[in-house]
Amino acid sequence: MREEVIHKVQQALAGDGLDGLVAISPENFTYLAGFVVPSQRLLRWRHAAAVVRGDGESGLLCVDMEESTVRAAAPGHHVRVWREFGGQAMAGLASLLSDLGLAQGIIGIEMDYLPAGDFLRLQELLPSATFRPAEALLGRLRQVKTPGEIDLLRRLSRLTDQAIGEALAQVRAGMTEMDLAAAATNGIYGRGIELRFMIIATGERSEYPNVGPTSRRLKPGDLCRVELFGTAEGYHAGVCRTGVVQKASPAARHIWRNLVECRELLLERIKLGAHTRALYEAFLQKFDELGLPPISFVGHGIGLHLHEEPYFGRFSDNVLEPGMVLAIEPLVYGQGKGFGLQLKDMVVVTDDGCELLSDQTDNRELIVIP
Amino acid sequence: MREEVIHKVQQALAGDGLDGLVAISPENFTYLAGFVVPSQRLLRWRHAAAVVRGDGESGLLCVDMEESTVRAAAPGHHVRVWREFGGQAMAGLASLLSDLGLAQGIIGIEMDYLPAGDFLRLQELLPSATFRPAEALLGRLRQVKTPGEIDLLRRLSRLTDQAIGEALAQVRAGMTEMDLAAAATNGIYGRGIELRFMIIATGERSEYPNVGPTSRRLKPGDLCRVELFGTAEGYHAGVCRTGVVQKASPAARHIWRNLVECRELLLERIKLGAHTRALYEAFLQKFDELGLPPISFVGHGIGLHLHEEPYFGRFSDNVLEPGMVLAIEPLVYGQGKGFGLQLKDMVVVTDDGCELLSDQTDNRELIVIP
Repeated sequence: MREEVIHKVQQALAGDGLDGLVAISPENFTYLAGFVVPSQRLLRWRHAAAVVRGDGESGLLCVDMEESTVRAAAPGHHVRVWREFGGQAMAGLASLLSDLGLAQGIIGIEMDYLPAGDFLRLQELLPSATFRPAEALLGRLRQVKTPGEIDLLRRLSRLTDQAIGEALAQVRAGMTEMDLAAAATNGIYGRGIELRFMIIATGERSEYPNVGPTSRRLKPGDLCRVELFGTAEGYHAGVCRTGVVQKASPAARHIWRNLVECRELLLERIKLGAHTRALYEAFLQKFDELGLPPISFVGHGIGLHLHEEPYFGRFSDNVLEPGMVLAIEPLVYGQGKGFGLQLKDMVVVTDDGCELLSDQTDNRELIVIP
Repeated sequence: MREEVIHKVQQALAGDGLDGLVAISPENFTYLAGFVVPSQRLLRWRHAAAVVRGDGESGLLCVDMEESTVRAAAPGHHVRVWREFGGQAMAGLASLLSDLGLAQGIIGIEMDYLPAGDFLRLQELLPSATFRPAEALLGRLRQVKTPGEIDLLRRLSRLTDQAIGEALAQVRAGMTEMDLAAAATNGIYGRGIELRFMIIATGERSEYPNVGPTSRRLKPGDLCRVELFGTAEGYHAGVCRTGVVQKASPAARHIWRNLVECRELLLERIKLGAHTRALYEAFLQKFDELGLPPISFVGHGIGLHLHEEPYFGRFSDNVLEPGMVLAIEPLVYGQGKGFGLQLKDMVVVTDDGCELLSDQTDNRELIVIP
């Protein structure tokens, strides 16, 4: 278990009037426990959980198949193992909560992750416990990263950015989006990190937000949006660059210049005490020069999840603190018009401004693919 | 929407006394709708759903950011769009159910996926509706694949197997697990498919079930478990091969021979009418010659999810039908002993036996890495 995180959790539990906390999503399990249970994310019934009591006492729950991995990662810890066949995850969790004396307690739990069927079973098994949503508490704690988290995200950001630059330098007109994907993954794993997800959207597909690569061939004039999420130890960096095959149209160059200026404007203003809504509004003022519809946020926290609080949008307002790691992404989806351009970088808020974590490739101009 | 699937759903709804069905997990959305909503799997609050009424009438729900993708994939369909910021997924779903006249109906919904918080909100929004778990119904329908699904899984199985063989042929002693991962992903994307997940576990790490690649370097004598999940259109093939660096120990060769014999024994017995528990018991009898602990299942359905019904284990019994696609995987995790070996293939049950879908590489002997 991560001692510094457990300490933050203890303080939050006291503040929120909770006796204990169950972290049961992959990201919050890792946040508390400090390691990944590989199949938790893949097979959602293979529940793993980290439980913390108000006094800092803790325990772990895992499925039998992952027992060896969990015991190797958390030697000497209290671990409850449930059997995938013939056993029940919620029976294991109820036992763990009882072991920790929480069977009659007020327990925070992730109501935005725990499936409804499991929640109903858990309530039946522990009729004297009171469950309260804990996702907001955990989201709040995760916003300000520890020095170790920042170091890891800096490393991931740089390596991810390098891999995109390398991939765009390797492809040529006539090659496919899948060739671009092969070059990108080769660059990611060759740098010793893993890939969580990638967006590769070229030509008329570049207008679609989150799509992966296809066998579409690159043609002169195509815009190529490439976003990679490099990952290690459960953490992610998201970086996006846009390339153009051979020669960009004046319209594309005009949009790109605006996106680069939006990024500069944001980097100047991201600092301790800045308000996220004001940052979004400053972005909008610049972006509106294009006369194109903006997306509803131009940045968000990132770390154990692809999107975290705080968002830079009009529907919330947060004050920036040192240690927050943010992905900022001025972009255009020309929906129904067959084009899209996106620029996404990673930054960390510091005491006197911010530090750009990505940006190992020069992207003041669209990257040219020969 | 997929007409043949909707027809199967209609029959199942009538049989189970349901007025309608909500498919809200990524795999069941794709099963009914016939396409993938990219960010549904990545950001679990970005709900998408496919709703089918007893008479076959249907509708789709998606988040605003995915609207262009959904409308392009389902032109002319009834689509309810909810706004990620300032909107609520469950309000959108309640509206869609009301549009379809199901606000007072008996509705099947995936209680093993829908988060508890969302379920409580949905109940509040539709107080006259009755919700029943529908995951078993959907799991049952997905077991027997359509000819189109089988063609896709055959293609994925072969390409995935080829990519593993190629990757193991490219690495050498002294290279890292990450180099092996780079070669594997290069082979997957180079063949025009995507990678959902990979297991790379070598040397003393080969005993851990589901772990990804690290910077560990390959040494003479290392066992190398490589499992890739090639994916396209939301479907997965899982194939695993084990390599050895330079020379296998007599003990490793002995285990491998047994695993290959277990596979042959299973391939001979997989046919229309065979019982999964009997198949598991036949496997156990052979496997027990090793005197090592067996895992609790030696095979499982596969398709839209990495694991589906039916399992080949001792805790359930199912009768095989033509069109079922199965992953069979004799394996040893020598937990605490620093070794592991695994052989995983894809098969489809036919009228007179089964067809091996993978196995493009010869794996009667451990693959030798120079």
